[in-house]
Parts: sequence; C-alpha cells; structure tokens
Amino acid sequence: MARDPVLTAQAVDFPRWYQDVVAKAELADNGPVRGTQMIRPWGYAIWERMQHELDRRIKDAGAQNVGFPLFIPMDFLEREAQHVEGFSPELAVVTYGGGKRLEEPVAVRPTSETLFGHYMAKWIQGYRDLPMLLNQWCNVVRWELRTRLFLRSSEFLWQEGHTAHATGAEAKEYAARIYRDVYLDFMVNVLACPVQRGVKTETERFAGAINSLTCEGMMRDGKALQMATSHELGQNFARAFEVSFTDADGQRQDVWTTSWGSSTRMVGGLIMTHGDDAGLRLPPAIAPVQVVILVVRDDPGVGEAAAALERELRDAGARTTVDVRFDLSFGRRAVDWELKGVPVRIEVGPRDLARGEVTVVRRDDGTKAAVPVTGAAAQVSDLLGTVQEALLAEAAAFCSRNLVEVATLDEAREASRTGFARISWRILGAEGEQALAAEAISVRCLQTADGDVPSDVAAPDLMAVVGRAY
Amino acid sequence: MARDPVLTAQAVDFPRWYQDVVAKAELADNGPVRGTQMIRPWGYAIWERMQHELDRRIKDAGAQNVGFPLFIPMDFLEREAQHVEGFSPELAVVTYGGGKRLEEPVAVRPTSETLFGHYMAKWIQGYRDLPMLLNQWCNVVRWELRTRLFLRSSEFLWQEGHTAHATGAEAKEYAARIYRDVYLDFMVNVLACPVQRGVKTETERFAGAINSLTCEGMMRDGKALQMATSHELGQNFARAFEVSFTDADGQRQDVWTTSWGSSTRMVGGLIMTHGDDAGLRLPPAIAPVQVVILVVRDDPGVGEAAAALERELRDAGARTTVDVRFDLSFGRRAVDWELKGVPVRIEVGPRDLARGEVTVVRRDDGTKAAVPVTGAAAQVSDLLGTVQEALLAEAAAFCSRNLVEVATLDEAREASRTGFARISWRILGAEGEQALAAEAISVRCLQTADGDVPSDVAAPDLMAVVGRAY
Repeated sequence: MARDPVLTAQAVDFPRWYQDVVAKAELADNGPVRGTQMIRPWGYAIWERMQHELDRRIKDAGAQNVGFPLFIPMDFLEREAQHVEGFSPELAVVTYGGGKRLEEPVAVRPTSETLFGHYMAKWIQGYRDLPMLLNQWCNVVRWELRTRLFLRSSEFLWQEGHTAHATGAEAKEYAARIYRDVYLDFMVNVLACPVQRGVKTETERFAGAINSLTCEGMMRDGKALQMATSHELGQNFARAFEVSFTDADGQRQDVWTTSWGSSTRMVGGLIMTHGDDAGLRLPPAIAPVQVVILVVRDDPGVGEAAAALERELRDAGARTTVDVRFDLSFGRRAVDWELKGVPVRIEVGPRDLARGEVTVVRRDDGTKAAVPVTGAAAQVSDLLGTVQEALLAEAAAFCSRNLVEVATLDEAREASRTGFARISWRILGAEGEQALAAEAISVRCLQTADGDVPSDVAAPDLMAVVGRAY
Repeated sequence: MARDPVLTAQAVDFPRWYQDVVAKAELADNGPVRGTQMIRPWGYAIWERMQHELDRRIKDAGAQNVGFPLFIPMDFLEREAQHVEGFSPELAVVTYGGGKRLEEPVAVRPTSETLFGHYMAKWIQGYRDLPMLLNQWCNVVRWELRTRLFLRSSEFLWQEGHTAHATGAEAKEYAARIYRDVYLDFMVNVLACPVQRGVKTETERFAGAINSLTCEGMMRDGKALQMATSHELGQNFARAFEVSFTDADGQRQDVWTTSWGSSTRMVGGLIMTHGDDAGLRLPPAIAPVQVVILVVRDDPGVGEAAAALERELRDAGARTTVDVRFDLSFGRRAVDWELKGVPVRIEVGPRDLARGEVTVVRRDDGTKAAVPVTGAAAQVSDLLGTVQEALLAEAAAFCSRNLVEVATLDEAREASRTGFARISWRILGAEGEQALAAEAISVRCLQTADGDVPSDVAAPDLMAVVGRAY
C-alpha cells in the first residue's frame, strides 16, 4: 500500500513544499509577534553546527569574538548617510524603558557597523592597534512585512564581522580572505552548496559599502539566495565615527573598514539546495545526526547489536543516534528520519541479524544495501564521505544545467523563469538592470568570464548573473 | 624601582578596584545606550568558555537548544500574575516598527517563560511528548537605573532552560539535577567558586516560582553574588498558557514546569572571587589562555625554544600563546598578562636558556621557579591542576573565614559588614528578614544545618544565610 505523501511535491508548489518541510522536519515555527521565528531543536542543532564550522574558520582568520549591545542610539545610525537610508525603513524602535518614556528612543540593531565604529574610535590609537579584527554572534532585527521562516524574518541570528585596517589594500585583502577562507570554503565543503561568486552592482551593494562580495546559491526552484556577503566599507564609517590612527610617521589617518555576515538564512538555503519530496537531505558535514540506527523490533539481541554498532560509529567519529521508539511504527520512524534529512540510516532487525547483516539506507539517493555487521561501522563511516560528495555533485550539476549563457535581455528574462542567466554586463548595464528589476529579476553578481570574483568592478568584459531571488 | 600600582587596591576601594580590573584587563566597556555593555575580546573569550562548559553539561542532562524570539506580546507577560508584577517595572517596549507605530507594542524579553509556555502548549499533546527539555542561549533586557559592567546591566547574555514534566515530583527532581550536575559542578570544578547552597525565601523567590534553588558566591569584599538559579514553577505557567497533556489513562492534565538560568554576571563573580591587587586570577579550567610564553628578547635561538615549548604544551592540551611583542617592555607585557589573569607565565630568555632553563611564574601566588627546559611542558601541564586546586582552596578558606554563625539579628547585622551570617530561620523569620531588608541585608538562601539544600522549605531547623548582595 502506497503511503500518502507527507509533503507537497516540489514540482506542485515549491513554496508550500518549503513550508511543509520546515514544519514536518520540526525546524521552526512562527513566533507570536508577527515575523518572528521559534527555531526548534532540530533546526537549532543545524544552526549550531553552522556556527561551530564558521566560528573555527573565523578564528583561524585571526578575528576575535565580542558581545556588543542590542540597542543603538538613533543618531548613530544617522551618521553615515547611505547606511541610515538603507536601514531606517526596517527599524524597530524602543520608546519606553523601565516604565517611563525614554528621552532618546533607541533602535534595536539591524546590523552593528555604527557600534563597531564607536568602539573602534575609542580603542584604536596607533598603527600597532591595527588591524583590529572583531566578530560577533548575535540577533538582529529588521522589521519585515512579508516574512518566511529562516529566509526573511523580523529577527534573525547571524555573525557579523567588523575589521579596521591601516590601508585600503589591506582591508580589500581581508574582505577577500574572509570571503574565500570562511564563506566559500564553508559553503562548498560543509554545506555542499555550489555558489555563484562575484560582486554586487552599485544598486545591490550593502548600504555604506564600496564593494560587496557575495555567495549566490541556486535553489531547486531556480531562484537565487544570497548566502553570505563580505563588504569593503572604504573609509565611510571611519569618517562618520572618526576612527583614525597615528601611522608610523606620526601622521593621523582614517582607518579602512570591512564587514561580513552570514545568518540563519543559510538554513533556508540548505533546505532548498538539497531537499527533495521526502524532506531534508543534510550533507554529513552539517548533519547534527549523521547516522541513525533504527532498531526494527525489541527482540533479544537486537538492542545489544545496535548499541555495539553505535559505539563503533561514535569511536569512528560519526554523530550517531539509536531509535528505539517501539511505540511508533517502523514506517513512521523511517519517514521521520527521512524528513529530518539524516544522511545514513542503518536498520537493525532480527532477520537481518540472523544472517549477520544490517541494512544500510542512503538518504541522498535512497539506495539500500545489506552489509555484514562486522565492518559495518567502517563502511558507513566511509559512506558519509561518499554522500557528502554526491550531494555537492548533484547540486553542482543542477546549477550548471539551470544557468544559461544569454546575449539579450529577452533571453535573460526567459532563463530567469527557471534559473540564472549570464549576460555580458556591457550589454546589460545599469539601464538593463533597472528594466529587469521592474520584473523582479535582479543582478545577483558580476563576475569574470570564468566565474571568478573580479578584482575590479569596473573591469571590462564582466558577466552579470541575473535571476529571481528570495 | 617599584612600579606604580596599575589598579586601585581592593582594600582601598573595592568597587573602584572592580572597575579598574574590568577596564585594564580589557574585559568590557560601557555601551553608548545607558546600561548596555560592550564585552571585549578577553571578556568574551571567558564567556565563551563558560558557555562551552555549561552547554556540555546541559546537553548531558538531556536538554536541547532552541532559538526563540526577542519580542514578546505584552499580553503574554500579563497572563501570570506574579510574573508580570515582577518584570513590568523593568521592561523595554518597542512601539515603532518599519517606520510605523505598532498597533500592539511588544516587549523585549526580560526572560522567556511565557514564550516557552506558548510553544509548549502547541507542541505537547500526550505523555509521550514529556518531558520536554529545552534551553536557549540569548540576550535579555531588564531596564536598570544603576548599572555595573557584568553585574547589573540593561542587557545581558545568558542561558535559560525551560522544561515541562508530567508530575511535580519529576519537575522537582529535574530542577535539582540541573542545579547539582550543571551549576554546582561548574561553579566548583570549573570556576573554582565555592558557593552557599540553598533555596530562596518566599520574598526572594523568582516571580512565578514555587521554589528557587540558588548558588550564592561570596565576593572578596564579603558581599554575596547570586551566580545561578534553578526554579520549580509548579503549574503556574502551565495554567496561564494552558499547557496540558493526555496521560496514559486518557486524562487531560496540566504539566509541571521548571526554569533555570545563568548569565554573564558570572564573569563579574569570577573577577570578584579570585581577583587580587594585580588583576584577574583565572582558574586554569576557565582561562582562555592557560599558559603564556613570554619571550624576553629577540636573541638567536630564543624564539625557536619558545615555539618548541608552545608545541609541546599544546600537544599536552594546554591553551598556550606566545608573546613576542618586543616593541613593548618586558615589564609592561608581564603586567598585562597578570592583569588578564593567565594562570601560568613562562619566561624564555637567553640567560636562562644558556643554563638550559626557563622561568615559570604562577599567577595565583606569584611564586617563580627555574625549570629545566626539557620536561618543562609536562611540569607546567601538571602545575595547571595544582593552580586550579589552590584557587578553590583559597576561596573556600576565605568564605569559611567570613561566614559567622550567629544567634541574634544584631550579630547578623554585624557579620554582614564583612561577610555572611548564618542564623536559625526560626529565630529570623519573615519579620526579621524584613527588618534586615531595610538595611540592605538580605537572606541569600535557606539551607540545612550542614549547608545542604533543604528538600522542604518548611522543614524545621533551617538556617538562613544572610548578607549584603550585588
């Protein structure tokens, strides 16, 4: 008997499929205040692994974590002209505190460039204090009208890095280093998400930046999701907050700053890059549980065999859990773990065990194999690497299939219905960008002909990657 | 030549000493909005280690992390009568969002009992969903007039656990388990902070709780600091949020809940438990850097010897850093690491090295020893355990010296000038509690005669620990 599908099929209604996965895989729920989200244990465990992997890379790049305040004086935001223009429509403002109307209302941080500017102005004196490399993990608020869990919410969790350097060249190099060694490495090697690399056009740039490097993922509905960005801020914030230093020659100079961020949005990107009609598919490197051992029945010896296997897998470094929820049917439990996207399931039952075997099921392609119990742990451990590579290869193939090289705006429009179009920036230009924007198609990034980050935004022969976006 | 003291002496002005340490050890700074704090890299690294140690224990106790919203509808807070009364004077309220006046103002969370109540009502159906064991790491806001970095700030970072259980006995047992296996174990074995154990009086209890277990540390000025609490909430929040379940007999019942928290306040407690006139003294188990290798001069072979020692120490699991800031004087660098409280300093210089030795300096007691380079790493590694024990023993001796058994309120008043007094709760009573409160002396906890947590608040022969508190 065929089971009713648990989720709406992707091909039927992709947004509905997304909503179903988020609910049924128990990732998140809407909070009581409009636009806020309640990240549930499974969703949060994925986020914690993202934090762990990113934090290690950020520290390897020399940055140190800090904890700066949630509240920002309104006038801080107003000091950098483009910044206030970019963020003021989205601000949440506190006007009462401790039972009294505040004389000066305060903003809930939408991002912390201004606070870091304030701090750096105080703590940077001379060239020996540079570079100052800081990062923070925190929540930020941007009031949104149309929200979607993980993708667009009034409050989200993120990391925001803020650094100050003695020269523009150093700042540029550091923004590029973070982009490459932290974000790209994480996207590709942990999330198994191939991304389009490039820089933002002037229109799409971060409010206050002189250059924005971006990672643009392609979701399985062909739409783009900005997964992380790294910005060169020039001396805009340094001037606004008077962050200067005395150089080795005793001259006073303004610093050059960068900022770079990635957020819980990546959870949404992960879902939409790998998920299928049976639910999430988690790359092993990010999966909170890599292997679930599903004990089929509570027969003599079965639990012991499962426990022994769990020990071996844990010793081999695989994040493993045993499911003995015998009050639920085997089928229901199998569907649950598929929904949650656990990469490998091992079914341990009396019949298989009698033959000295267990059944190993891959979540990515659904293949099942009978495997001798002896050596099963080692084999499954290896399989995790195989699954990681297979998911990356599958996503990469999907992206290249759905990225079309085009020569005209009309072709770009057509290609954007199902994926990305790549068109010469000389042909498109700011005017073409504006024309497409009217149809909700945007330039996701500008890149070199071979898909790399351009060293100069004004370089000739740049290509524009365009598409619809989340 | 004697150096000028870097800090105000504790004996001269303890609050000033605290302020000096926080500034000079570069732990934190005031934020631009009154009462907010900017936790700097060294302070945040200490907090990250606290998080790491506590999070491991919390997960071992079976709780899972979640990420719930910052904003709470005002009416949520009003549903539990004592809760709203306890928190409304401290609320920060958002009245503008996205450029418009909000129809319903929202509160910035002062704590999240009500959100967890809302969530649990939705996700708990039957007895199989219990216990539900959740925790979150987040920021909370309580508008304060008189603030002090780490100790009392309008915004602070913390973890708050929230659990639901089928019976009151289970909830009680779980609140006690968290108290014992998470908080007490962490305070004693990681922070090396001996604490008075016990429960809060009715007056001092958490708003909405039926029982509050507390860890009360004694600071070096004799004042108390509440370091962490674990609360039984009875069915108060379950009733207010209609969190009920169908039991095994098919009957509908309200759940029993707990909540428990610890915060960046512990950083203040750590400073004031161990700090001395030269700065912080960090127990090795919590120190972000356990060993600093101070390279005296940039002479041939010295850097190499330091690097080799660093490798050996890291291989032995010691968090180690090498200081080669030759543009600063040796003395200045030594003072810096003392201020920051790094437990062990190894001075590597050409003269010592010529004798095959390095100098090992303990931060806790200031003793110096010449140690053969060969085997220095192993010896220093062992020394970290010794320092950890020594700091705990010293703090424990200080606490028992400054805790006086008394028989009258006048004696309690006198003892509270320099430390804690312990007095029979039968003698003190609610009336005595009120009398002392008028002089800013409070009952920190009620405990059994042998200093343990009473299983019953109404038990006879309880002792009250009283003192002045932060």
